[in-house]
Amino acid sequence: MFALCSLCPAVAESVSEMKSEFEFIKRIRAEAARHSDVSADLVCGIGDDTAIISEREGRETLITTDLLVEDVDFKLCYAPPRCLGHKALAVSLSDIAAMGGVPRYSLLTLAIPKQNPQSTIHNPQLEEFWEEFFAGYFALAEKCGVILIGGDISSAPERLTIDSVVIGQCRRGQAVRRGGAHVGDGIYVTGEVGRSAAGLELLQRGERMSEGEERPAQKAVRAHLMPEARVEFGRQVGERRLAQAMIDISDGLAQDLAHICADSGVGAVIEYDAVPVAAEVMLVAEDKKAAFALAVSGGEDYELLLTAGREAEAELIAISRACQVGLTRIGEITTASETEFESKLQLRRGGRLETLKARGYDHFL
Amino acid sequence: MFALCSLCPAVAESVSEMKSEFEFIKRIRAEAARHSDVSADLVCGIGDDTAIISEREGRETLITTDLLVEDVDFKLCYAPPRCLGHKALAVSLSDIAAMGGVPRYSLLTLAIPKQNPQSTIHNPQLEEFWEEFFAGYFALAEKCGVILIGGDISSAPERLTIDSVVIGQCRRGQAVRRGGAHVGDGIYVTGEVGRSAAGLELLQRGERMSEGEERPAQKAVRAHLMPEARVEFGRQVGERRLAQAMIDISDGLAQDLAHICADSGVGAVIEYDAVPVAAEVMLVAEDKKAAFALAVSGGEDYELLLTAGREAEAELIAISRACQVGLTRIGEITTASETEFESKLQLRRGGRLETLKARGYDHFL
Repeated sequence: MFALCSLCPAVAESVSEMKSEFEFIKRIRAEAARHSDVSADLVCGIGDDTAIISEREGRETLITTDLLVEDVDFKLCYAPPRCLGHKALAVSLSDIAAMGGVPRYSLLTLAIPKQNPQSTIHNPQLEEFWEEFFAGYFALAEKCGVILIGGDISSAPERLTIDSVVIGQCRRGQAVRRGGAHVGDGIYVTGEVGRSAAGLELLQRGERMSEGEERPAQKAVRAHLMPEARVEFGRQVGERRLAQAMIDISDGLAQDLAHICADSGVGAVIEYDAVPVAAEVMLVAEDKKAAFALAVSGGEDYELLLTAGREAEAELIAISRACQVGLTRIGEITTASETEFESKLQLRRGGRLETLKARGYDHFL
Repeated sequence: MFALCSLCPAVAESVSEMKSEFEFIKRIRAEAARHSDVSADLVCGIGDDTAIISEREGRETLITTDLLVEDVDFKLCYAPPRCLGHKALAVSLSDIAAMGGVPRYSLLTLAIPKQNPQSTIHNPQLEEFWEEFFAGYFALAEKCGVILIGGDISSAPERLTIDSVVIGQCRRGQAVRRGGAHVGDGIYVTGEVGRSAAGLELLQRGERMSEGEERPAQKAVRAHLMPEARVEFGRQVGERRLAQAMIDISDGLAQDLAHICADSGVGAVIEYDAVPVAAEVMLVAEDKKAAFALAVSGGEDYELLLTAGREAEAELIAISRACQVGLTRIGEITTASETEFESKLQLRRGGRLETLKARGYDHFL
């Protein structure tokens, strides 16, 4: 755990230029202090062996961690540092949103390459890199009311590695689990799917983010590099207890729906024509069928996938409008088919049912 | 956050042999379940978007994270995987102990190299590596009553990176901070210092850990590879409110004492002859002076350094005996010398006072 004693100006110098690791931590601490509102429950943030948070009766702590490894989860040749800082926080915020919780605190762990000759465009040694990274991180933290309360820093031989912890809260018993889906529930998804996967494909083909441009390719690239976690929608759905089950789409819609089905002991039928495939997917897909496949298997959309009874639908739609987030009913929870052991997911296309394969991203395939 | 749905046999297959990342997570989850007692406050561990912990009025949550990067914080050529699993947890347990808290839960994040040709001795691709790693991790977790409740896994291009989060608890207002030292407090340290630094030096000179051997060199090597966090001592000191300030010696005694002094606005005088320098330091130091320097500047001892009033001394000694941990009074807290701005630490040697430099390990020097 990093921990330092006195405040000092904003993150303004590079790791290589700084006197020491402690100087770097001081700057992060100062930035954290500058961007944070006072939290009544936060006894101690950065600055001791551990952070200290007061507990309250009737409340639950939610905690999640997400790892981003250079050249596996991102490449510095296409990920601007400001986007990387944003995304490092967004991926964990999304997990809190998927529980219907309120994100409150974060910890950030960085393994920083001493030298990274392969990263000529955005070298994490450079002062500007960390200014931009923390600008992205703290802008999102501030928007969502999240306070950075700790972390750790190490040097690394080659690759930048980021571990992002977010701590959220909800009222006792209110967290929306994966295992609560019931037969007959509608299946809903926020926003559109596949845009992030299309963006990644475009980045791999050489497209680069360009500020201010509104071309579809830029929209896709931005969705991949700066995903928007559905923090406010998730919070309201959780608070009003509208969802039976909820998960964020990080592994791909089909894979994440399979998680809900497995944990709930149910099956699901998805309507082919109902799935809100992002228009940008056609930039990289040969036909509509390929676009659909990419949209349901490509991960990192960070939309929320939830199941809810009919009686909740009107309120869900009202919340989605208030949050300016699309919401689409894409299918229904069914009984788990005993004969379809491998996949509990079915797809209705042109009146016929077929198996929908639950295949998302896997780090070791 | 990793999250899976069904239990399965213990960690028994290698990453390369396993069908997928999800299979690997299933095995970790099964191990976590096998090694954990039921915790009344744990609503959900591994298996959803986030872990869920019930809060209680009058209690505080302590949270810390520590990063271990291959070839920076450890080398696979000398760190047996069982030791690495142990140490990954121990370093964060030590932070909770330094707050006087009780460790309760942990999260573990792993960036695992797909291929690591440089690591011929302990290749993290191998089944045995992870069996041993988790045997070390869970043995310590079980001993300390800690439950693994989450984490994340990614592949990595080259180096194994481990991020270890531990969550602890204490009664409200009871956490022992760094900033509480008072002028006149005695300064105490558990165990002996410098053994870990000596062990690291011996490892770098080619010494390797050998089970069952009791040579001094082996004792030093073991102290570095399998440090013992002072969990029970820290917990009792916290519970009985005996310490004014406490920190664990991860950066080196002088550096960590400097943190206490800076946060408390005080100075410190250390008695040269009182510091419990581990005998093994002489295996790598040329003379007694060099041994002292290594002992107070070498980090990773994970002993506890605390300050306390005279009235607490008898009880502190009683606890140290009950915990079978040595405890030595090594000096006294003084007023911060205005003229000694750079270092508030002084060393009394042969009746004369000199400046003690606060220099520990720094990742970027």
